[in-house]
Amino acid sequence: MKREKKRIRQSLLIDYMKTKPFFTDEDLAKLLNVSIQTIRLDRLELGIPELRERIKQLAEATQKKVKSISSKEVSGELIDLELGKSGISLLNITEDMVFEKSRVAKGEYMFAQANSLALALIDAPMAVTGVANMKYKAPVHVGDKLVAKAELKHRRGNKFFVWVKIKNGTKEVFRAKFILVSLESNGGPKV
Amino acid sequence: MKREKKRIRQSLLIDYMKTKPFFTDEDLAKLLNVSIQTIRLDRLELGIPELRERIKQLAEATQKKVKSISSKEVSGELIDLELGKSGISLLNITEDMVFEKSRVAKGEYMFAQANSLALALIDAPMAVTGVANMKYKAPVHVGDKLVAKAELKHRRGNKFFVWVKIKNGTKEVFRAKFILVSLESNGGPKV
Repeated sequence: MKREKKRIRQSLLIDYMKTKPFFTDEDLAKLLNVSIQTIRLDRLELGIPELRERIKQLAEATQKKVKSISSKEVSGELIDLELGKSGISLLNITEDMVFEKSRVAKGEYMFAQANSLALALIDAPMAVTGVANMKYKAPVHVGDKLVAKAELKHRRGNKFFVWVKIKNGTKEVFRAKFILVSLESNGGPKV
Repeated sequence: MKREKKRIRQSLLIDYMKTKPFFTDEDLAKLLNVSIQTIRLDRLELGIPELRERIKQLAEATQKKVKSISSKEVSGELIDLELGKSGISLLNITEDMVFEKSRVAKGEYMFAQANSLALALIDAPMAVTGVANMKYKAPVHVGDKLVAKAELKHRRGNKFFVWVKIKNGTKEVFRAKFILVSLESNGGPKV
């Protein structure tokens, strides 16, 4: 019975690694209603690396795909990218990113996360931002882990329409719509 | 005759210091059709400090007025501020601000200049960004000197509608419309 439970739990864990790769051991423990220690042992048995390592591995594999900007210019960690289609990045909010008075993260960090992710998914040798419309839906604070998802909505000539949503846990904190413009790699910008 | 010319030129120079305080000696020389050396001598005689010093003096006097954020959080140099009304800031584009590939300044720098200037002019103890709509009208490059002008268009309750335009010389390179939200200094955010 105990062995059967464990088999089911470990098979769920393997599934979660695909659908919820950014869950911490704590999150997984809650989800499966076991102790964090059990999750750690399960991961060890199954050869699943810890969260930090998982993110690093994903980021390394993903970075290579970026074309339109330099991959290190993507704000936060780029952890998924389907060129010309969609992308996901993670950003940890640290002390240096918040306003002294309000303790709220400066808008430029969410902008940079969204903007660089939007640029990264463009399948062109170079691209720049043309238009950006943004809504800050809830304040972001130190320690928050932001997950940005970007999607190419449509393309018209050298103009790319990309939507980005940023969540803090399950709460949407920011959304943006960009019009990005691809540039010729020879012959200079065509803005 | 020569003395008369000089008198007129110096009187023009004094006027320019009010209307065009960010002109370089080179700009002024062109404008008055004399050598840069002549401008320098005129400045010396009239006790007008050099451009860098003029900006520094203006920035020091202006910073003290900022209420809603910490004055050092204003991106670039804040050189004019009428609290609750308008503001002007300067930003020099440096090597670290441009994309490696396109050599175009990253959108986040213009965003940060505009956004922090917009926040700075809010006459409230704290404020954050709610909505930002932006248009990047022309690419900005290393060495460009950006002048941002922000204006409070209207206010509704704790919402402030601020428009910002950024020029590079005479060319408008960026414009943004913000809705900023003032926060209660006690009792936490009211977003």
